[in-house]
Amino acid sequence: MRGKFITIEGGEGVGKSTQIAFVREWLLAQGRETVFTREPGGTPRAERLRELLLENSGETMPDECELLMVFAARSTHLANVIRPALERGAWVVCDRFTDATYAYQGGGRGMDVSQIATLEQWVQKDLRPDLTLLLDAPLDLTSSRAQHRNTTIGTTDRFEREQREFFERVRSTYRARAQREPNRIVVIDASVERDQVSASIRAAIEKHLF
Amino acid sequence: MRGKFITIEGGEGVGKSTQIAFVREWLLAQGRETVFTREPGGTPRAERLRELLLENSGETMPDECELLMVFAARSTHLANVIRPALERGAWVVCDRFTDATYAYQGGGRGMDVSQIATLEQWVQKDLRPDLTLLLDAPLDLTSSRAQHRNTTIGTTDRFEREQREFFERVRSTYRARAQREPNRIVVIDASVERDQVSASIRAAIEKHLF
Repeated sequence: MRGKFITIEGGEGVGKSTQIAFVREWLLAQGRETVFTREPGGTPRAERLRELLLENSGETMPDECELLMVFAARSTHLANVIRPALERGAWVVCDRFTDATYAYQGGGRGMDVSQIATLEQWVQKDLRPDLTLLLDAPLDLTSSRAQHRNTTIGTTDRFEREQREFFERVRSTYRARAQREPNRIVVIDASVERDQVSASIRAAIEKHLF
Repeated sequence: MRGKFITIEGGEGVGKSTQIAFVREWLLAQGRETVFTREPGGTPRAERLRELLLENSGETMPDECELLMVFAARSTHLANVIRPALERGAWVVCDRFTDATYAYQGGGRGMDVSQIATLEQWVQKDLRPDLTLLLDAPLDLTSSRAQHRNTTIGTTDRFEREQREFFERVRSTYRARAQREPNRIVVIDASVERDQVSASIRAAIEKHLF
């Protein structure tokens, strides 16, 4: 039987790493083969693409270049790691996937969403996550650095305001996607205590996949 | 005035490097600013994508991954090198461009040509070469290694036959494109003496671009 494909999404500062560590412990404790991976990345070629995506060289990065590299990395990740694991019955837990492309490149950066949809179809064919856990919290809670500066200095500079608007767009794109696909995307309230967040995640996986 | 964009295409063994050296000498001797570049490559990011495309790791390379990396490299090459050069009035001579993607990935490898056309439009918008020189010669002349083995050993193994069929498809795709776009693509007979080939190239550039 084909394994289950779980993706974990959310903006900066929502506690994604902590909760992925929880999911890892919990699923491994069940003795089920589970592959933990991340995007962009997950294979040697995709990790090198990730480096090229993240590096801050002087070279202009056109929108299309970024988008094509993201999906090139996804393509090799799917062919070499995700699909083979699912086919042998393993579960796959991926730290960010295509919802992040819609949220960051589409919502945050304003790239052409129809291009993202076309690339999604080319690269993934019919494969979509079985369950996506969207860790969500108000920006005031997650952007603690900006919050700290606002309260101590009492001002928000243009860069911080732009940063905040960017992350608001990321968050609202994620939430809009969850509203449109409530059967796949479960919104997890990440504003509460860490153990409560873990309990919600566990409940969502048990309800949707067990 | 916008500079001219010349691409030089052709299969293996047609003498492309020799003729590019001729074009370089000749155009530089005119004192015109001319940028010589190549694909995939031409910028630090694109050259690193080229390495990833050419390296023979154990990692499976899905068709889409290869195609997206080729056009990601093209996108950054256009934004950082080709377009700025053309806009300041320089000429650009590029060793292979999108016709090679149609010939190698489309014709040779059988990838989806409509995907290539879509990516061409996304990445290049309205930019197409002003002149493409297609160096063309029968495979018997260009594949000297295979020819040598055939005459000495008197046999063609499956790999060589596949190789030959691959390069036949590349050549026929190039030629079909030249037939469809005779105003842009000039077929240069590369089966004659090297100086004659250079003379044909020079005549084509003078006729089309001066």
